[in-house]
Amino acid sequence: MTKKDNSKFTTMKNIVSLCKRRGFIFQSSEIYGGLRSCYDYGPLGVELKKNVKEEWWKSMVHRRDDIVGLDCSIIMHPKVWEASGHLSGFTDPLVDCRNCKERFRADHAPVVSAGTEVEYKEGGKSKGKKITAIVGEQGYVCPNCGSCDLSDERLFNLMFRTNMGVVDPTQEIANRIDDLAKLDKDERRAELSKMIAKSAVYLRPETAQGMFVNFLNITQSSRVKLPFGIAQMGKSYRNEVTPGNLTFRTCEFEQMEMEFFVKPGEDDEWYKYWHKERYNWYLNLGISKERLRMRDHDEDELAHYAKGCADVEYFFPFENADGEGEWAELEGVANRTDYDLKKHSEHSGKNLLYFDQDTGEKFTPYVIEPAAGADRATLAFLCDAYCEEEIKEGDVRTVLKFDPRLAPIKAAVFPLVKKDGMPEKATDIHKELLAAGINSQYDQAGAVGRRYRRMDEVGTPWCITVDGDTNEGKGVTVRERDSMEQERIPVEGIVDYVKDRMLKTD
Amino acid sequence: MTKKDNSKFTTMKNIVSLCKRRGFIFQSSEIYGGLRSCYDYGPLGVELKKNVKEEWWKSMVHRRDDIVGLDCSIIMHPKVWEASGHLSGFTDPLVDCRNCKERFRADHAPVVSAGTEVEYKEGGKSKGKKITAIVGEQGYVCPNCGSCDLSDERLFNLMFRTNMGVVDPTQEIANRIDDLAKLDKDERRAELSKMIAKSAVYLRPETAQGMFVNFLNITQSSRVKLPFGIAQMGKSYRNEVTPGNLTFRTCEFEQMEMEFFVKPGEDDEWYKYWHKERYNWYLNLGISKERLRMRDHDEDELAHYAKGCADVEYFFPFENADGEGEWAELEGVANRTDYDLKKHSEHSGKNLLYFDQDTGEKFTPYVIEPAAGADRATLAFLCDAYCEEEIKEGDVRTVLKFDPRLAPIKAAVFPLVKKDGMPEKATDIHKELLAAGINSQYDQAGAVGRRYRRMDEVGTPWCITVDGDTNEGKGVTVRERDSMEQERIPVEGIVDYVKDRMLKTD
Repeated sequence: MTKKDNSKFTTMKNIVSLCKRRGFIFQSSEIYGGLRSCYDYGPLGVELKKNVKEEWWKSMVHRRDDIVGLDCSIIMHPKVWEASGHLSGFTDPLVDCRNCKERFRADHAPVVSAGTEVEYKEGGKSKGKKITAIVGEQGYVCPNCGSCDLSDERLFNLMFRTNMGVVDPTQEIANRIDDLAKLDKDERRAELSKMIAKSAVYLRPETAQGMFVNFLNITQSSRVKLPFGIAQMGKSYRNEVTPGNLTFRTCEFEQMEMEFFVKPGEDDEWYKYWHKERYNWYLNLGISKERLRMRDHDEDELAHYAKGCADVEYFFPFENADGEGEWAELEGVANRTDYDLKKHSEHSGKNLLYFDQDTGEKFTPYVIEPAAGADRATLAFLCDAYCEEEIKEGDVRTVLKFDPRLAPIKAAVFPLVKKDGMPEKATDIHKELLAAGINSQYDQAGAVGRRYRRMDEVGTPWCITVDGDTNEGKGVTVRERDSMEQERIPVEGIVDYVKDRMLKTD
Repeated sequence: MTKKDNSKFTTMKNIVSLCKRRGFIFQSSEIYGGLRSCYDYGPLGVELKKNVKEEWWKSMVHRRDDIVGLDCSIIMHPKVWEASGHLSGFTDPLVDCRNCKERFRADHAPVVSAGTEVEYKEGGKSKGKKITAIVGEQGYVCPNCGSCDLSDERLFNLMFRTNMGVVDPTQEIANRIDDLAKLDKDERRAELSKMIAKSAVYLRPETAQGMFVNFLNITQSSRVKLPFGIAQMGKSYRNEVTPGNLTFRTCEFEQMEMEFFVKPGEDDEWYKYWHKERYNWYLNLGISKERLRMRDHDEDELAHYAKGCADVEYFFPFENADGEGEWAELEGVANRTDYDLKKHSEHSGKNLLYFDQDTGEKFTPYVIEPAAGADRATLAFLCDAYCEEEIKEGDVRTVLKFDPRLAPIKAAVFPLVKKDGMPEKATDIHKELLAAGINSQYDQAGAVGRRYRRMDEVGTPWCITVDGDTNEGKGVTVRERDSMEQERIPVEGIVDYVKDRMLKTD
């Protein structure tokens, strides 16, 4: 394969257009005008994403002895989210300050009686104009700037809530309006929350908690010994305020997460190990080194329980003010310490200690977590593969230079012309490839040159053409995507040829 | 492989116990007491289910030229469910008749003023005792038996509803209690529904609608020609009233569905084709013929738009009154006619006709749908594989006789004893297998006999043992799971041996 040359700036507009035109990614429910931030993977997209996930699973589970897999339900017990901290804030009334734009919890705001005159600076800036206003019935001011120019209170949680069971709580609310009307504002809210909470369940905001909650089941059933990991791929949901950039930030997304449990004291070493390992995974699958970096979190970015965190970032062609791309997170590698297991032990009352058979010690393991986004990785591989190449003056080809392991279609088989038994021969080869588990496509429509271009555009590494010489025992031509070079290969050798090339990159 | 002999009745109790003990299936959020009808796949379960799905995808997509894949978001536009008919009944108040058990729509019930005396038969049976009662404030009676012994009205829909966007509608309701209190009962309900509907979205109750909604995108991007299919695997959600039997009926479940579009008039032929094809898929993967059947739906079971439907059923070891198992649905094969595409065309205003380039005709294709459950198939393969065999008197082994393609672990490698370089040699072989993409496990704990049994219990087809003769160039022993026969194989030939055996079943 020749080196990728996509120094010419790839734009998201080109990516989006290719995705729709060739069936990688469509907007969800497009015939109904689309749904905010939801996307569907078309025939080629589903193969690409499947390949990305398969490579992750291979490298994390199948090829290692120290990691086992897991696949949890998306709806989990509400207590999981209580323990993890995702549910706190569920009944928190959030308020936006219209003056300084701060969002804060109403119940944590400074109390100031309605009717009181307050003074604050415009925009919350020390040099801002002085403003005088009367506190309304909300009875508090902004904790940041002291303003009483506030939005209504809103319950806000990033988690999607739904209800399990046959009774819709809306019905109960409808039946109890008269009772509710007798209560004051806070009581109404509390009562409504209680009615809804009865059957409320949540779509998981991350897959990680599934691993902690199953720690006991897995240590009891799988004879694992520290250090060991539990890996899971699957959908998660967050009611994102600002989704955007195609599949980069969406409310429904797929994660590839692994929790690696280690002995406290060995955590720093393993943190470094996964740091390096995960960065190399992307490189190994063909991501350009100059567009991939590790970025250590600043002290103030760290979650309160995390000892360290670094992001694998990719330089995406997202449009921004200065027309450049943007470094954005593909994956976070974090040292979560023993926070999660301890929290779940506390909330469930179960003993989640690890018993070391060699030393007789009992302790809560530390955990290193590489948490990747399957959609983000897929988008990064797509953006990175995208090239427009001027082959000769005025002749530009669009080509997706995927690593062959990620390419949705591995090989295409063409008859040079639709006669002289060429379609039959080509069909035979195509079927042979399919039988060998190689995703092949047969194409006989249009000039061979156009067929090559169609395959370039979807990243097919090898095009195999049956021509007049094939029947004379002179084999077929194999044309390589990136170099566009052709060589003749005996017909019997085609399956092995493709398999060998695939293995070389493996 | 020898024939499966599990005539001895496998009980669900044994299956559930094995699943938990060996890490196939755990109850979701078990440390918190579990969540009604949700399950997690453990380290072995995730591999088993992955293999089932992979075999489906191979047979439906990769090995065919006439079917393409798709992967849609689980949350789709609410209008999709309006068009499909899944949403109707959303605002319908349902009532249960306590007398005859009929469930009916309150707004369709015969109106009878409160205070009126009515007469009806006990249990709604013509020979039932005569009952006299006074109609209550609901103001209607059961349309089936005329009883006024009715439950409260409840909004009921099988779909899980959630809200997308940053405002929780509960908050809006809390703020508007006083307004709502001024309205009458029906107006309150209508107003509440309106508030919730603003940001309401639904978890899909089936993957199938994704294929219809993307029909246009796919015909435009993928150069497909009739007959062709669109296949999708993924989770769906139904608020089931009576979940049960482990993963058989759950609120969160995974489907493997395919919509096969054909020319009207050719639908009967294709219906028969898929009928046969799908039945054979299970047989080919080792399901016992005597526990698999096709059952044609009776006229009154058919959905109003369906021209024909048949279920692939498996005889599960579910407990019932007479201590026998139970035939239950694995998959439905239906002729859905042109109902869905026409409905979506009507509701979206988009032209969803197929243009036949050969004949110049335009028409709405008919569709044949084989809709399988991934969890059900996995459970059937698990139940069918389960055997308890008396090897000699008093010595019973539990063995999962999976087809090797479905087995979570393909090969296990043992050193006979932990010395004389055997662990090192065994580790080398194990690593070689892993590198070749064969999911292998290394085990050196306990007597070899016990290690065989552990592998039998999880269905590993081949156990490879390094012994004293291995270092003398005499190869290793390979012990086959079902026959328990051993043969010696040269060390260099191990990878090919396993690969060959896997292919033989492919």
